[in-house]
Amino acid sequence: MNRQELIELIKRKKSFLCVGLDSDITKIPSHLMNDEDPVFEFNKAIIDATLPYTVAYKPNLAFYESNGIKGLLSLKKTMEYLSQFKDECFTIADAKRGDIGNTSEQYSKAFLDSNGDFNFDSMTIAPYMGEDSVKPFTIYDDKWVILLALTSNKGANDFQFTQDKNNQPLFEKVLTKAQEWGTINNLMFVCGATQATMFTRIRELAPESFLLVPGVGAQGGSLEEVSKYGMTKDCGLLVNSSRAIIFADNTENFAKIAGLEAKKVQEEMGKYMKLYM
Amino acid sequence: MNRQELIELIKRKKSFLCVGLDSDITKIPSHLMNDEDPVFEFNKAIIDATLPYTVAYKPNLAFYESNGIKGLLSLKKTMEYLSQFKDECFTIADAKRGDIGNTSEQYSKAFLDSNGDFNFDSMTIAPYMGEDSVKPFTIYDDKWVILLALTSNKGANDFQFTQDKNNQPLFEKVLTKAQEWGTINNLMFVCGATQATMFTRIRELAPESFLLVPGVGAQGGSLEEVSKYGMTKDCGLLVNSSRAIIFADNTENFAKIAGLEAKKVQEEMGKYMKLYM
Repeated sequence: MNRQELIELIKRKKSFLCVGLDSDITKIPSHLMNDEDPVFEFNKAIIDATLPYTVAYKPNLAFYESNGIKGLLSLKKTMEYLSQFKDECFTIADAKRGDIGNTSEQYSKAFLDSNGDFNFDSMTIAPYMGEDSVKPFTIYDDKWVILLALTSNKGANDFQFTQDKNNQPLFEKVLTKAQEWGTINNLMFVCGATQATMFTRIRELAPESFLLVPGVGAQGGSLEEVSKYGMTKDCGLLVNSSRAIIFADNTENFAKIAGLEAKKVQEEMGKYMKLYM
Repeated sequence: MNRQELIELIKRKKSFLCVGLDSDITKIPSHLMNDEDPVFEFNKAIIDATLPYTVAYKPNLAFYESNGIKGLLSLKKTMEYLSQFKDECFTIADAKRGDIGNTSEQYSKAFLDSNGDFNFDSMTIAPYMGEDSVKPFTIYDDKWVILLALTSNKGANDFQFTQDKNNQPLFEKVLTKAQEWGTINNLMFVCGATQATMFTRIRELAPESFLLVPGVGAQGGSLEEVSKYGMTKDCGLLVNSSRAIIFADNTENFAKIAGLEAKKVQEEMGKYMKLYM
């Protein structure tokens, strides 16, 4: 999915909600555990219920890899299911990969190649290894690299705010430098929402880039602040919510409740799009 | 495998060689391509030929994930095969993962849990997200986190050498800070060999930690310099070679030649262990 298509999708659904499919098998409703593939059945029901309100799905690879080969089969089936909605949602492999050049090429093949088992629109990458670890993810048409800049966890304080001699924190250097490696058409940034007021500064450095924003919902970020400080005329935001939607309920009504939670977020987003876009 | 066992293994084999199983399916000998699982057959032959000279094996996940589910089955079979030699070699999942705390827990389960599909002794982790992204990998007995500090690629220059106000480069901050999160018994560092003279400084900051050193061989690092500047009384080094050993030959003799290459490196290593340990 290219930038223009993504922007049109956001405008059409009046939503910039990304649902994080962090489908921890120990947390999904117990009545699904008799199914052959409980994680896939869970995802399918969540997707069906949330698709009208959602522009992106983001499975976090960790929750699939932790079930070994079986977990990756659940992911493959989930991506096959999502492929029928390819104009209705953007897909993100939350993989946080990154390695030397020839190895990053292999990762890009694993997740972005349309002939591969997964065929995501985009994947998240960690910046520590620099340019040659990032560039191989920009070679596919209409596919995206989403680079970690400012994350929403406590550990973000350990290195991401370290200032260099010109008082520039590391995450700002990542934001600036990486724009030499990709364009607004194939490069987004992860910017955590627990620091919403920092979006003013982020928009000075990356005025048009799409930002993937975790940390709203269970992690406590404010959707209004993110919208106020981070939104552009093209929206420019994908705000993720995982647990607050997919685990809102764990009875047989889980999907319905997840859908209602997504609708609630979408309605709030529609309001902010009117105000700030 | 715990620290003492690893040190004894190194002394017994007079080797600190790690063979990187970057088993790119497009590069393995063509006569194997008729096998049901060419990558596993390749790995098995390489392991059989190199085991006497090798103390560790390091499959890079990217080369398995790029073949999708099939690739991960090759990895699972490789790890099952290696499990019979668990006292003969240390295993490293070169995965470069790292995510917020609850997600990193899932990754640790994926690769380090003895009930999982892979059951590695250790895995590589990227430091960008800080403490809570690293700590979950330290909870298993006799298992290790191997944190990226100084990598061997060109892109290492983009962020890892950025100096803070006290002139401390980022990779040194990672080396120092991370030792608050783990001990010399469960934390190693990746330190690239293309910068061998920097090992003097690295040893000031991490005098006893084991270092996983890529970049010797195809990437051009010098084994003698790494040994001279990086070795401790317990050796403290695992030096990786991937392509220079596993792809030394691509005829039906590939395994034999790989074994001879590994033997050559081991003999050189034995010499440096006498000189510098």
